[in-house]
Formats: sequence, C-alpha cells, structure tokens
Amino acid sequence: MAQGRVVVYGGKGALGQAVIEHFKQSGYWILSIDLHSNEAADANVIVNAEESWTEQEKNILNGVASSLATSKVDGVFCVAGGWAGGSAEAPEFVKNADLMWKQSVWSSSIAARIAALHLKPGGVLQLTGAAPALEGTPGMIGYGMAKAAVHQLTASLASKGSGLPEGSTALCILPVTLDTPMNRKWMPKADFGTWTPLTWVASQFETWLHKPADRPQSGSLLKLTTKGGETEITKF
Amino acid sequence: MAQGRVVVYGGKGALGQAVIEHFKQSGYWILSIDLHSNEAADANVIVNAEESWTEQEKNILNGVASSLATSKVDGVFCVAGGWAGGSAEAPEFVKNADLMWKQSVWSSSIAARIAALHLKPGGVLQLTGAAPALEGTPGMIGYGMAKAAVHQLTASLASKGSGLPEGSTALCILPVTLDTPMNRKWMPKADFGTWTPLTWVASQFETWLHKPADRPQSGSLLKLTTKGGETEITKF
Repeated sequence: MAQGRVVVYGGKGALGQAVIEHFKQSGYWILSIDLHSNEAADANVIVNAEESWTEQEKNILNGVASSLATSKVDGVFCVAGGWAGGSAEAPEFVKNADLMWKQSVWSSSIAARIAALHLKPGGVLQLTGAAPALEGTPGMIGYGMAKAAVHQLTASLASKGSGLPEGSTALCILPVTLDTPMNRKWMPKADFGTWTPLTWVASQFETWLHKPADRPQSGSLLKLTTKGGETEITKF
Repeated sequence: MAQGRVVVYGGKGALGQAVIEHFKQSGYWILSIDLHSNEAADANVIVNAEESWTEQEKNILNGVASSLATSKVDGVFCVAGGWAGGSAEAPEFVKNADLMWKQSVWSSSIAARIAALHLKPGGVLQLTGAAPALEGTPGMIGYGMAKAAVHQLTASLASKGSGLPEGSTALCILPVTLDTPMNRKWMPKADFGTWTPLTWVASQFETWLHKPADRPQSGSLLKLTTKGGETEITKF
C-alpha cells in the first residue's frame, strides 16, 4: 500500500521532476500534471496549452477525477511556472504578461480547484510565488503581476470560506534561484552555493505532509534563501 | 484650445462617464476607450471583447495613435473593471477569475502601454484596485487575484525603468463602495452617505493634473473611505 497520494502540477519541469523522484522513493502514489507525461509518476494528466483556462480546468479536473476515483490526496504541489520580462515600454510586455498569467495563475488556480475537490482534510496545497513580486518589478511587469496574484491567492485559500477542506494548509514558496540544469546552463559562473537545491525543496514538501506541527501557518509566503549550500525559510 | 488632453479607459462605465463629464466641463479634450462609444468624448476607441489580450492591445494602441496623432496626453485614467465572486469550491471560480483578469488586468496593462507611449513627462496614470484585495478574499478569489495584480502593477510602474515617461506618477485608487446607479439599485437600503460620490473621484483626478504638488507619491494605493458624505484617502 502506498505511503500516501500526491498531485504534482508541473511534474515534468525541473523542480517537478525532483519532487516526483523524492516522493517516489518515499513510497507515495503520484499523479503528474504537465504538457508532457512523467514516466516516473503513477498516473499522468496531460495539459493542452492551446485550450482556454476553463477548457483546461474542465479537462484536467476530469483527468484527475478518473485517476483518483474515490481516493483523496495528502498533498497538491504546484510547481508550474516560467519567466519572461518586459517593462511597459517593451512591445512584448502584454504578450509576455499573458504567458506568465497562463503559466503561473492558470496552473495555481486549477491546483486550488483540485485541492478543493480531492485534498484530504488537513492536507497541504503548495503554490509557487516569487520574492521580487513582493515589491515592484519594473523590468518584468507581467511576471510580477502573475506572482503577486499567486501570493494573494494563497492568502485567500488560507482564509475561512475559501473552499479548501477543513484543516488544510495553503503555502506559497518564493524561491530566489533554484539550482536547475537550465540555470546552470545560462549562469555557468554563478555561485551555485547560493542556489536552492531541488532536493531540499522536495524534502521540505514531504516534511509538511508527515509533520503537520512543522508546517508554517496556512497562508504563509516562504522565501527560500540559500548561502553556502544551506537554505533558510523567511516567512511573509 | 483645450485645457489639456486625457484618456479615460472604461469611459462608458458609471465612474468613466462621471470622469468624462467632469473633464468636459473643465475644457479638456477627451478620448474614451470602452466597449461602446461615449458621445460626450471628443474621440472614441472601441474595445472588441472577443479579441485576445494582444489583439486588443494592438487595435487599441492603433486607435489611440490615430486619435492623438502627435499630441501627448496629461493623464490616462483607467476606471474599467467589474466584479464576480467564487471560492475555490465554486464551479464558476475559474470562469469568473478569467473575466476579472480581462476586465481589470487587461485594461490596466493596456492603459500602462498607452501611458508609456503617449503620456507627457510628468503626467498621471491612474489605475483601479480594491481595498479587500490587500488581504485574502476567499469568497471572490478571482477578483482578489486580479486586483492584487493591479496593485503590484502600480508598484512596478512607479519604479525606475518601468517605461513610463520621466517624472510621471502612477496611482491606484481602492474604492470601498462607489455611489453608482447600479449600487443604488442593488442595495437600496444602504447608507449612501458611506458611498464615495463619483464626482468627488473625478474632481480628485483633475486636481492631480493641475497641482502636481498635491499628488500622492507615485506607486501609492489610495483607499477611498466615505463617512457622512465626506471622503478621505488612506495611503498604502
């Protein structure tokens, strides 16, 4: 029998893959949601990027319901996202803002729907924000708006009447820089000791499931800062 | 000769009409942007709600450029918006979140593009947020996300490198309840003395244009609270 069940939204991205590998080793049953399937997962729901927000919602919720049948899940981890820049002067500003909204807010909102419908009472819903969006982000306006929306979504989900199951915890991680293969490729000369290891994040997620007492308060924005390979959480 | 030139995005809404009437009386040349034309305005750009964000951006920017020719504007006032509820449990949550994003964030972002391209140095760009979105909004999650994005957009636009012209001011009003015909229709027994008069808001906008010294600091979120018919601004 599985240790528990988790949904990983963005399960084919760098962080998503690390999270799935980690939960796999711990004996969890895993459902991955992404544009492509993750073979390490026990089940996959494929996202069609051509669909509208409501179409994606409908098809993903149908896929999740078929995969889970009557089972409830212990955690829903949404690590989907992306990055694109642009100030108000940039011709690509609106195009990029549209992409950022789709990658961060569509995914986070659908993850919230999955949690409302399939999370166990006392379960964990994790979303992904960004530390810079706590202030203005003039060079990446669309990114900042999307992440600020995810931060506020976390506050809403932690509030009474949000529709999440009784006793559940909504948390938002705010990574500074994650130690991904892509970041190593594009910033080969950076100090990797200041980047947050994906395995650290994955292990943190599992701790939240196993030890409810160790969970930060629901609604917290959790900035992840790494120095000399050691990662600390600052709560907002 | 006109007293100055302003763009009113949402010029056919209740607040938009009041703003246009006010500036008309003060002798301004006015461009209205909305789904329908406002005959009191000097020029109109019609929004096609069926178009995508980037299509709307392109067509609206073309319309604004034709109307203005080489003239710059003193202010861009974005009072477009709407309201729809829904917790994470509500089947209509994503549909309504999509609508809220289009009504508040598409309009505010395109207004920011108009300001980047056509505002005079030292001009005013005004956006419309919402006081409840400063915290969680569990019963109206999509509305909260969209308004939180507009708040963060205001911070971005006020920051160096945002693409707005030199010395310009970006402000976001956070109305509690505006005294509109629709609100009177739906809440006939409310105390109208606690609702903010549209003429007060319009007059405030003109003061910001005429007296730069009276403008709140760029990036401010301005909560409008009315008691006994008197309105106060609280800055965030």
